[in-house]
Amino acid sequence: MDTRIGILAGTGLEGTGLALRFAKVGFQVAIGSRCREKAKRRADELAEKLGSNHLVGAGNDEVAASSDLIFLAAPFEHATGIIESCKSYFRQGCILVDVTVPLVFQNGRVSLLPLQEGSGSQHLARRVPPEVPLVATFKTISAKVLADLSCELDCDEFVCSDWPQAKARVMGAMRSIRSLRPLDAGPLREARALEHMTALAIGMNRRLKAREVRFRVVGL
Amino acid sequence: MDTRIGILAGTGLEGTGLALRFAKVGFQVAIGSRCREKAKRRADELAEKLGSNHLVGAGNDEVAASSDLIFLAAPFEHATGIIESCKSYFRQGCILVDVTVPLVFQNGRVSLLPLQEGSGSQHLARRVPPEVPLVATFKTISAKVLADLSCELDCDEFVCSDWPQAKARVMGAMRSIRSLRPLDAGPLREARALEHMTALAIGMNRRLKAREVRFRVVGL
Repeated sequence: MDTRIGILAGTGLEGTGLALRFAKVGFQVAIGSRCREKAKRRADELAEKLGSNHLVGAGNDEVAASSDLIFLAAPFEHATGIIESCKSYFRQGCILVDVTVPLVFQNGRVSLLPLQEGSGSQHLARRVPPEVPLVATFKTISAKVLADLSCELDCDEFVCSDWPQAKARVMGAMRSIRSLRPLDAGPLREARALEHMTALAIGMNRRLKAREVRFRVVGL
Repeated sequence: MDTRIGILAGTGLEGTGLALRFAKVGFQVAIGSRCREKAKRRADELAEKLGSNHLVGAGNDEVAASSDLIFLAAPFEHATGIIESCKSYFRQGCILVDVTVPLVFQNGRVSLLPLQEGSGSQHLARRVPPEVPLVATFKTISAKVLADLSCELDCDEFVCSDWPQAKARVMGAMRSIRSLRPLDAGPLREARALEHMTALAIGMNRRLKAREVRFRVVGL
């Protein structure tokens, strides 16, 4: 497929999941890290696991410079720094995909960081060059589920953005992933709903001794 | 069934849906209104529709005085006033069930009213006598779906409360309703997630030309 997928800070569980799911269906995927060698090692591991030659590792800056859909898979608290360090490399026409959730774990409970802009995605959108569209998705599905290829996703994933064409392009790529249905959740301000759903899912996993809570919409 | 269900401000679509769904499975249901005659007319209509003798209409105060599970089906902006006018009638051991969502419709968009307490349910909890447990649920499922008995619900409904026994009792009653699975969504502070999901569902109904968006959890 022509669309090149890059994953900034992609060596963790979230990045691994995205890399595996997209490479498996034929996308060229570049995993990025501040440490180039670490990214290369992870890409080699995943390529071997998949028996695929669709995965490469590189520095975050190289990934930013060479990708069409650039996923930001860092913990939320590092997201601004990574955007700052990569933004001069973004190619014309690229799309930044925010999969972060501003979660706070404290005293055995999970909550959301209050943010003046309303949501983590709106907060990050202000830190991105104005010509780069930002799309928020892959918030509610857990990294653990995503990275476990033996797990059928069997769920919906909500996508929101103030850039309709960018949103459509990201949803198009997502449709390639087996048993995952991307749903248009509206403008970027809806990101807070998705962030709340993530916190709700984490709480339910704990409370109901589940590990894989995710959502499906009925009635469409 | 021994549990008597009351629905304050129950003559609208939300109250109608709750009344029909609970009466259909054998609960005694009292529909309340500030106007006693209006409540009686609505109860008679629904009783005829169901071919049931499980529905009565009465004043909100009478309903508050005679019910075990007291659903608050008013628009959010009237909820505080109804609690105020009924709270001296609440019986010992009763449970208040908040199904309201603090929605704001403006310029063709739906959003949530910002509230100092964090959510509509937490806001109302402060207005309820401290000995009365408050449980939040039936937020994400639309009144229209609930009131249409030809529609299989086929979804989950999230329940949160800081009163575990009250939550369990409400969930027990909900389990009687066909194809509706109540899920423990944790303490009352999770109500904001449910309110966001309601706004998200309304937006999706509009955007995707659906009328019946509701949620199911996968992975339990």
